[in-house]
Amino acid sequence: MTRPAPDKVKRVASIGAGPIGAGWAAHFLARGYDVTAYLHSMDEEPAFRRILDTGWISLTALGLVPGASRDRLTLTDDLTAAMSDAEFVQESAPERLPLKQALYETLGRIVPPEVVIASSTSGLTMTEIQQKCPSPERTVVGHPFNPPYLLPLVEIVGGARTAPAAVQWAHDFYAAAGKAPLVMKKEIPGFVATRLQEALWREALHMVANGEATPGDIDTALINGPGPRLAVQGQCMAFHVACGEGGMATNLDQFGPALKLPWTRLEAPELTQELRDRMVDGCNIEAAGRHFEDLAAERDRAIVGILQAVAAAKTKD
Amino acid sequence: MTRPAPDKVKRVASIGAGPIGAGWAAHFLARGYDVTAYLHSMDEEPAFRRILDTGWISLTALGLVPGASRDRLTLTDDLTAAMSDAEFVQESAPERLPLKQALYETLGRIVPPEVVIASSTSGLTMTEIQQKCPSPERTVVGHPFNPPYLLPLVEIVGGARTAPAAVQWAHDFYAAAGKAPLVMKKEIPGFVATRLQEALWREALHMVANGEATPGDIDTALINGPGPRLAVQGQCMAFHVACGEGGMATNLDQFGPALKLPWTRLEAPELTQELRDRMVDGCNIEAAGRHFEDLAAERDRAIVGILQAVAAAKTKD
Repeated sequence: MTRPAPDKVKRVASIGAGPIGAGWAAHFLARGYDVTAYLHSMDEEPAFRRILDTGWISLTALGLVPGASRDRLTLTDDLTAAMSDAEFVQESAPERLPLKQALYETLGRIVPPEVVIASSTSGLTMTEIQQKCPSPERTVVGHPFNPPYLLPLVEIVGGARTAPAAVQWAHDFYAAAGKAPLVMKKEIPGFVATRLQEALWREALHMVANGEATPGDIDTALINGPGPRLAVQGQCMAFHVACGEGGMATNLDQFGPALKLPWTRLEAPELTQELRDRMVDGCNIEAAGRHFEDLAAERDRAIVGILQAVAAAKTKD
Repeated sequence: MTRPAPDKVKRVASIGAGPIGAGWAAHFLARGYDVTAYLHSMDEEPAFRRILDTGWISLTALGLVPGASRDRLTLTDDLTAAMSDAEFVQESAPERLPLKQALYETLGRIVPPEVVIASSTSGLTMTEIQQKCPSPERTVVGHPFNPPYLLPLVEIVGGARTAPAAVQWAHDFYAAAGKAPLVMKKEIPGFVATRLQEALWREALHMVANGEATPGDIDTALINGPGPRLAVQGQCMAFHVACGEGGMATNLDQFGPALKLPWTRLEAPELTQELRDRMVDGCNIEAAGRHFEDLAAERDRAIVGILQAVAAAKTKD
């Protein structure tokens, strides 16, 4: 058998009954797939269904694909049966390395060899997870962001024994499944989003430890400051657009010295010419020729909508 | 004369013609104040008006206060005249310490002594700025987030010679003016929001410097992962809610060891019992007795609206 085309997949298997496993199942069902969910024990069914039903409210609001239905879900505690006709496997088992290694040893045998298996792991690497897997070339990390039925990001990276074709296939499959896939160049701890979030989180802990801010202060600052903007513009584009005609080049040339200031406990890298150019070139690629005023107008329209959406969500309580 | 009640202020002066000064003027006009804007030179008027008009589009969409009008703006390059009848002064002059110190030396003389003067500075402290000011007790930092006509956050902190009453008044005034004021406990570089953003930014620069991610990767990760959630839940509440019944206590007890992992270049503080308790207590205060499922449902409703708002803003292009 050959691997199905990424946009022709019809049957997906999801392993795990927690918020991630059940969240993935909800997402795939909403996108019109047949989903078989493997639970370690059928006792987990009520919790699984509660997450599914919660997710379904949001997924319905965002718009289900024609034909999508919760009736197309099969629940089982028989792993072999769950894997038998899957064309893609999303694994969200507990984050313990020995458990995952043993699981992949089994999956490597019972999942048809052309089928890509993606792990939702946030803290382990695929190089570690695939160590005992007899068919590791089709195993990748496909790391979602919580809640996985709502946030589009999936970070994809292979392990040492993963075939590049499997990484590419996973990218194309997630894109077809309505996700925002991001292929990582290197297998680094925390991937991209969690690393950025973790830097922010550690700085927050420092501030609380030093009595500089309370958790409430930190959340007030985030929700009313960077948060609404980060939903529409990443930090690179935010600075690029804020600096007008000069863009990221102006930002780095003008505020570069600020990188030496103790504005956080995180030491900045040396602002070499090479780093400067990578930042500037990267922002120009992202801007794709659009004028900064055009990008700023889009940002503003989005923030207006974001603020209204947050206010509306709060009034409904 | 006595200081006006924070919610009775009618006339505001704004110093500066850049995106921050003009953005503040736009915000105050939209909230129904009479605004006198001081420009260093009337040559700056066209740029000032362009920012004002851009901001007005968003402010109108968010809803103007009855009676709010751009006709209630007075532009002048006469500093003394601009300050003569102001009941509050928002200063957004260039970020150069000698310039600001000289400006506050003048403002300290010409602004009626009961009037609070707030600086938009992001990189200087009020202790430095107020050094030559003859009436420093009413000078505070009132730091907005860009764009100031849209993002609600204002970080407020006094300098060494600021009276606590001025800080409290500024807090109450900004709240009455439709902002989300955050009073800082200590005068630390970068305040709260910029410190958090800077930690994230430096980690991003490290990743680009090491070839681990491009600016486009970083922005893709932020926009599709933490961004939409940070518009409705700060990082503390996001973790509190994600951990279900156990909340922040579960997060720290379970993932505490992850603080030792190299998930960012930022070293975490020691997770002492005291820090743990501050985080847990702070999150419980924020949650205000609400069940995590209630908070999660609100989060989900908001994220749905946020994703729709961002998509709608992009289709309009």
